[in-house]
Amino acid sequence: MIELVESWAREAGEIIKQRASEGFDVSEKTARDDLVTNVDKEIQAFLFAKIKETYPDDSIMGEEAEEGENAKIDMKKGRVWVVDPIDGTINFVLQNRDYAVMIATLTNGVPTLGLVYDVVENELFSGGPGYGVRLNGEQYEPTKKLPLNIEDGLVGHHAYMFSRDIDQVMTKTKHSLGTRIIGSAGIVLNKMIKGELAAYISNLSPWDYLPGSTILHELGYDFAKIDGGELDFHERAKVIIASPKSIEEFING
Amino acid sequence: MIELVESWAREAGEIIKQRASEGFDVSEKTARDDLVTNVDKEIQAFLFAKIKETYPDDSIMGEEAEEGENAKIDMKKGRVWVVDPIDGTINFVLQNRDYAVMIATLTNGVPTLGLVYDVVENELFSGGPGYGVRLNGEQYEPTKKLPLNIEDGLVGHHAYMFSRDIDQVMTKTKHSLGTRIIGSAGIVLNKMIKGELAAYISNLSPWDYLPGSTILHELGYDFAKIDGGELDFHERAKVIIASPKSIEEFING
Repeated sequence: MIELVESWAREAGEIIKQRASEGFDVSEKTARDDLVTNVDKEIQAFLFAKIKETYPDDSIMGEEAEEGENAKIDMKKGRVWVVDPIDGTINFVLQNRDYAVMIATLTNGVPTLGLVYDVVENELFSGGPGYGVRLNGEQYEPTKKLPLNIEDGLVGHHAYMFSRDIDQVMTKTKHSLGTRIIGSAGIVLNKMIKGELAAYISNLSPWDYLPGSTILHELGYDFAKIDGGELDFHERAKVIIASPKSIEEFING
Repeated sequence: MIELVESWAREAGEIIKQRASEGFDVSEKTARDDLVTNVDKEIQAFLFAKIKETYPDDSIMGEEAEEGENAKIDMKKGRVWVVDPIDGTINFVLQNRDYAVMIATLTNGVPTLGLVYDVVENELFSGGPGYGVRLNGEQYEPTKKLPLNIEDGLVGHHAYMFSRDIDQVMTKTKHSLGTRIIGSAGIVLNKMIKGELAAYISNLSPWDYLPGSTILHELGYDFAKIDGGELDFHERAKVIIASPKSIEEFING
């Protein structure tokens, strides 16, 4: 199945690159800085159609789904697909880079597959239980160990939470080697797979964190709500993705 | 002269890539998160030697200069070279990307040349009065207009200043489309040359802001101290680099 999903993501990437060169329409969702383009919608429709055609009994949740559709899904029942057609839409619009196509699956509430495709860098990470980690269709061997401690690495942050020190996310990571704010969960998580950051702390929807976190789990990282509560994979939540040791220290420290 | 300086930067880039593949030593300067490598020092020595050999009467200021050497230089007299061998050393060490070789010249206190070389992306921007802007040795034609207003773009920030809202840098840019923290002034300024950010506000040394700002000046952007005072090109300062309109609104707004 993973190869099929990779091929869909690659097809989606080709469409995005084509639309980027032709031009596209941008509109606001909830605020001036919450953008969506007709390309996000086209890619979601493309991926939804592929999933429905191949796995008609599965449920599908997507960032650009119609209002109320996501809420109806029971995340613990059967297989659920979680799709973010373009993660980092502002980067896509303003920079034409640092955005990703992302897909995850849950099976009876357990993450079973994750995929993050950095289209411009042509870097497609995928993986999950039984798959290990794959990069561009090949088994991926990490070139370096992922940082175990926050003080040994960079931390990816959410601009609002970091600047207001919400839940002490700034204070509790002051001992890191530095802060990065990149504007795409997928790009941050791909960097984490490569060992470039020690933690990512942000306010995220399931389609933002599940694809990358499911891959990182194969490399010994974990993900959790920053208040220690249970993640339901349904609602937006404040999450930390890091080594189990870093997560434990962050939550209890 | 600009072609010669470009050739030095490219030679420096080759050495850096070679050392990155071989491994290098990292040491702390003033703090755990203020790193220097033997590669920074080697590249500075390489560039200093090239400059001294070709222009023996000029002065040279560098990020990794011996203590006290930079302070002796009169920035307003004759030609002064300002060199940052590796801007974004932490990115170089942890990510092996998002760092830059940077060079600028001042002639009797006026910026006359700037160069920012993103080694990994092979993107060498250079320029200054009489040169316009060059990308990889060719005249550069911007593909889009640089954002005139902060509300139309992203803002690059300094993690400490942003998170503590020092001098209201966070509050005064709240209406932007988003925040980016990248860890290299050179990489931020290269993105600004391409129109990807509307402003950069940070606490910077002359070797951090002069190279990129001198190029951006050719595209109609400007740079200033955020308190409206005069930049002496000698000391570290809190600066904003943006359109003259954005700067004026930031300082007086």
